[in-house]
Amino acid sequence: MSNGTLIEQLNWRYATKKMDPTKVVPQDKVDAITEAIRMAPTSSGTQPFELFVITNPQVLSEIRKVAGNQAQITDGSHLLVFAAWDNYTEKRIDDVAKLVTDVRGELPMVNAYYDNLKSNYVPREAEVNYAHAARQAYIALGVALVAAAEQEIDSTPMEGFDPVAVDRILELSDRGLRSVVLMPLGYRDPAVDWLLPMKKVRKAHDTFVTQIN
Amino acid sequence: MSNGTLIEQLNWRYATKKMDPTKVVPQDKVDAITEAIRMAPTSSGTQPFELFVITNPQVLSEIRKVAGNQAQITDGSHLLVFAAWDNYTEKRIDDVAKLVTDVRGELPMVNAYYDNLKSNYVPREAEVNYAHAARQAYIALGVALVAAAEQEIDSTPMEGFDPVAVDRILELSDRGLRSVVLMPLGYRDPAVDWLLPMKKVRKAHDTFVTQIN
Repeated sequence: MSNGTLIEQLNWRYATKKMDPTKVVPQDKVDAITEAIRMAPTSSGTQPFELFVITNPQVLSEIRKVAGNQAQITDGSHLLVFAAWDNYTEKRIDDVAKLVTDVRGELPMVNAYYDNLKSNYVPREAEVNYAHAARQAYIALGVALVAAAEQEIDSTPMEGFDPVAVDRILELSDRGLRSVVLMPLGYRDPAVDWLLPMKKVRKAHDTFVTQIN
Repeated sequence: MSNGTLIEQLNWRYATKKMDPTKVVPQDKVDAITEAIRMAPTSSGTQPFELFVITNPQVLSEIRKVAGNQAQITDGSHLLVFAAWDNYTEKRIDDVAKLVTDVRGELPMVNAYYDNLKSNYVPREAEVNYAHAARQAYIALGVALVAAAEQEIDSTPMEGFDPVAVDRILELSDRGLRSVVLMPLGYRDPAVDWLLPMKKVRKAHDTFVTQIN
């Protein structure tokens, strides 16, 4: 079973405040969501982030403590952590070029393209490169929120956490990664979630969209 | 007519390199895409960006010149420009709180929530706030890419442009906005687009996803 059109999915989903801790998202639905994240487009196809799927109760409990004690982290059955590259390096971009060549065969333009990317990215400050990588993770976050809704799985995008602490808990620095955003997966608890009955709030179309004809 | 599941949509789409300049995306499909963008979730519901939908040939031509002469900008029939708030201000957050109250009625916790947000955001540097707002636009970009694919409309997410020049062309500074990312909409030209026949390249699941059980 899945929700219908994208608009129906976007209206069905909401930033779930109270999840039912007794319910577990089935593996096939987790797989559908992570697969959508893997297929999300990124700048120059670099996929400059990794995805952590956490079910370990001890780890979830530790993350909850450094995330404003938000209960969805432990009430949900799975926590997704998007962790972006802390920098663009020669090695990382070479690996992307190699993957492209492995899949598509040797193409001179591919190497020229990624050589150019290296000369642009590698000299930049790590913070600039991390910011760019994090934006790519946000494209995937948008896709992930749709993917969860399509699967009728509730989720809550979360920026309110201490990224340095999450990096420490997941030992991300050793892997050259920095935590960007969290997304618990689970099932809404309709009897308790105060946000569920509330109307969705969005700016009116005419204040949000400007047409230049 | 629309594509099927999200995964099918993500596999159907690609960063279209050559669009057919004779084809025009019908208004109902443009509307479906902009509506999905409007409904995309954002941090604290702020929707800290605006969307420009451009069909004016002169404006498209000017933007193309400051975007590496990428032909999709003028070969597509519509150009979406995501433009984020250049800063979080008291006024902007008050307007969000007012909209929430208008839709949901007066709730004491709403004003407390946004007062807290103001005390966190307003003292921060404009660049930090812009970076945060731009990330929210990237969530919507992810949703927009899915929305276009659902409508069987081709698109190309573009970061390769001079944002200061685009801000000037669209007079964004006067509105406290900065251009973040471009997304032309149109129809692929299958006879000419070199990327279309290429296999999609993504990291393998086991190098992209780490499970912590």
